[in-house]
Amino acid sequence: MPKFKLPPRLPFRRLGIAGLGLIGGSLAKAFSPLAGLEISVYDSDPNTLEEAGRIRRFKKATGDLEEFLGFDLDLAYLCMPVHRNIEMIREMGRRKYGPAVTDSGSTKSATNLAALEAGLNYCGGHPIAGKEVAGFSNSSGDLIRGCLFILTPDERFGRPQKELFGRLKALHELLECDIRRLSPAEHDRVYSVVSHLPYLSAAALAGTVQRLEGFPALPYAGTGFRDSTRVGASPPEKWVAVVMDNAENLTRDLGALIDVLTEMKTLVSGRKRPELFELLDSIASYRRKLPEKEKKSYRLK
Amino acid sequence: MPKFKLPPRLPFRRLGIAGLGLIGGSLAKAFSPLAGLEISVYDSDPNTLEEAGRIRRFKKATGDLEEFLGFDLDLAYLCMPVHRNIEMIREMGRRKYGPAVTDSGSTKSATNLAALEAGLNYCGGHPIAGKEVAGFSNSSGDLIRGCLFILTPDERFGRPQKELFGRLKALHELLECDIRRLSPAEHDRVYSVVSHLPYLSAAALAGTVQRLEGFPALPYAGTGFRDSTRVGASPPEKWVAVVMDNAENLTRDLGALIDVLTEMKTLVSGRKRPELFELLDSIASYRRKLPEKEKKSYRLK
Repeated sequence: MPKFKLPPRLPFRRLGIAGLGLIGGSLAKAFSPLAGLEISVYDSDPNTLEEAGRIRRFKKATGDLEEFLGFDLDLAYLCMPVHRNIEMIREMGRRKYGPAVTDSGSTKSATNLAALEAGLNYCGGHPIAGKEVAGFSNSSGDLIRGCLFILTPDERFGRPQKELFGRLKALHELLECDIRRLSPAEHDRVYSVVSHLPYLSAAALAGTVQRLEGFPALPYAGTGFRDSTRVGASPPEKWVAVVMDNAENLTRDLGALIDVLTEMKTLVSGRKRPELFELLDSIASYRRKLPEKEKKSYRLK
Repeated sequence: MPKFKLPPRLPFRRLGIAGLGLIGGSLAKAFSPLAGLEISVYDSDPNTLEEAGRIRRFKKATGDLEEFLGFDLDLAYLCMPVHRNIEMIREMGRRKYGPAVTDSGSTKSATNLAALEAGLNYCGGHPIAGKEVAGFSNSSGDLIRGCLFILTPDERFGRPQKELFGRLKALHELLECDIRRLSPAEHDRVYSVVSHLPYLSAAALAGTVQRLEGFPALPYAGTGFRDSTRVGASPPEKWVAVVMDNAENLTRDLGALIDVLTEMKTLVSGRKRPELFELLDSIASYRRKLPEKEKKSYRLK
């Protein structure tokens, strides 16, 4: 009787990662130590490629799109901004691209539709991980290990996607990710309120302080302000693409947030103490349902 | 020649702390190890008093207001909710209370006015420290040590306050606090935007998710949502008192926040990508001016 459990079989052997930003770089760094997995990378920025070359973990690295699309891969993993992922998916469609394709974008509906129209063997994914800083130099395998990970299958892709879904699940379980499943539309609905709206709200709060004329209030800020606005310091490039791609959900959710704030303003200006207490107490009870848990930590044995 | 620097003289010897909640308890725990300082405490809750007794650090502990007001003190430090501090200040005025008085309340204008009318030797203070949990059992000396600390003198108090200001500054410097000075009105103006508005904004964001019918979005939340709404889980008792006491500033600041969000909503719904980028980029640059520093850490040698 064996005394140890055999490691799971690798669901893919040859991985190509396009886009070595914070997420693409972190995925590449998290996957690269796995024995038997071969990783090739693409990035349009020569400095990023040079930096990636220095860590000596990748089989091939290219800044040439043609070359990347010609790599012999089992899975192409698109980690560029959403609109660039979509452009590459369309190009793949024109070439009748054979390997399986996934992406790590923060919105899923438009990318999913592009992949469906391109006739690819595709299933979308989204690692729920981030930092206020961008780029390969800030990436780290630890960002991805143990994180919540959403896969977004769409039954219109039919049987081949079912098989791909299983392999993507197995691939990310190698990183101890906590895998959940949502449809692309459900995903964009949920992440509009729990991710994209919090970003806009944090930025709006920092913007309110910024607009205070003659009151340099920032030096007096404590932990509450720091926490509430931290994500507002993120580089806006990535966020603007996400917000625009999810504009319909966000327009409605911004309206809902403005409604709650307007209700608060009415209660505050009218000195309606019991009503304000009731509103805030109900919200606090709801928010306390979110456990202050650390993500599953991954330890190399 | 002495080889060590003499420790500073104690600015007060007999301290009375009224209200052993998170802040009062933390102040009591931070001051109590200082040699030569004698601390007596008051709290209206018998369980809190019993808990405070168990740590064996206080000279006297009472649940009787009369008794507390009769203690022979150099400084009465009021750490109850703002409206209760004001009630005690009025009672002190009626009794021509002799010892110096300060308070740790999150708003300063109303308390300052009450102390002026009561003819007390008073100067307000505000330790910029907090947690999402309340009460003596969650208090800790470490919460106060090294924190930003605002003193709010008002020239209408005249010469005795100048001397009290200096002694309060020296007292909190024993805890390595970073002391700054604002008038009570400036204080309430600044903390409306950097503390009270972020609380309401965090609560409004959590409230928006709460109101999403049929979408249990909370289980999908990542770090961004957690950070942006953390303070919204705080017990609302304290916050409602603060918000009501600072209602005028907050009504204006809630209006300013709603304006920024409405501007964002217009840009998002109109798919105005460059304009949205410009707005968010300017805010991100502003927010990055706030260093992600830890508070000064206090180490016992």
